[in-house]
Amino acid sequence: MRKSNSREKLVEATATLLQKQGYFGTGLNEIVKESGAPKGSLYFHFPGGKEELAAEALALNGAGMRAQLSGAMEGADLEQSLDIAITALGAQLEASNFTAGCPIATVALEAAATSDRIHEVAREAYESWEAIITARLEEGGFEDAEELAVLVLSTIEGALLLARAYRSIRPLTTVRKRLSALLRTA
Amino acid sequence: MRKSNSREKLVEATATLLQKQGYFGTGLNEIVKESGAPKGSLYFHFPGGKEELAAEALALNGAGMRAQLSGAMEGADLEQSLDIAITALGAQLEASNFTAGCPIATVALEAAATSDRIHEVAREAYESWEAIITARLEEGGFEDAEELAVLVLSTIEGALLLARAYRSIRPLTTVRKRLSALLRTA
Repeated sequence: MRKSNSREKLVEATATLLQKQGYFGTGLNEIVKESGAPKGSLYFHFPGGKEELAAEALALNGAGMRAQLSGAMEGADLEQSLDIAITALGAQLEASNFTAGCPIATVALEAAATSDRIHEVAREAYESWEAIITARLEEGGFEDAEELAVLVLSTIEGALLLARAYRSIRPLTTVRKRLSALLRTA
Repeated sequence: MRKSNSREKLVEATATLLQKQGYFGTGLNEIVKESGAPKGSLYFHFPGGKEELAAEALALNGAGMRAQLSGAMEGADLEQSLDIAITALGAQLEASNFTAGCPIATVALEAAATSDRIHEVAREAYESWEAIITARLEEGGFEDAEELAVLVLSTIEGALLLARAYRSIRPLTTVRKRLSALLRTA
């Protein structure tokens, strides 16, 4: 039995809207409209309403970035892996007219104080990305891979944030260059 | 003639709410309630409504962080300056039960796609913080101060974001340590 098409459409539309404008800026009517799913299907598939739907959509966003990071980490060396990852993030941001930044950040910040359920999904996403970077650093022979992974992820997240605020990918190109130099001397 | 007390109260309450829960998560009724200002005073002082009030509140948040960063940058050396700045941010975050992160970030991300006016205030805030860090790095003799300032600010912003998502100041303590090491070898 295949999954309901309406259900998938709702989750995908929500995932995109959450990335672009966050949780509180996304209304249920907008989700239904963007998804093309019948209006009645929302509470049928998500009896828990917006919070339940958003939690699932945010998990989808987390998995998308996880897959993207994993792919990038197959670069020939660590420097190349980071180059691939950051270049791709910059290209997506530019192509989306600076709306497609980190797919988790806006909601993570909004929900940090309000929804435990959404907070939990956001935390798990970041932890999983951190784990991918840690594994790559360990493979690269870094003894303090866990700490360096926090630094690398923080830097990328901060650069994505500044790039949206500046509407320019300059922060990403700058940290890409600097992170490579940093890891060479770490 | 001194400024209206209601006006100040409205801006200050909005500034706190924007930091904690963002633009779309903050309603006008909540602002009026938190401020203690008479309900009628909101549109009297801010005929442009929520967007106008939020732009002013966000500018206040930007100025607050600018003052805090400037103060920290008076540390004996660059390493101590960054230590002071990041330690203070971590202490504020912990004391607020992980609600008082970057006072601009949530709104900057939400508004990036929706409000040019608020986007502009957020951009100016980040640029002013970046300028303070650049000046300190130049004073410290770094030739590539501008690029390093982007790296430092990105790292701090990303760590503040992760610290909220993890409800732990570990990302901040980690990058504090790592940034010092980085700048010693830059």
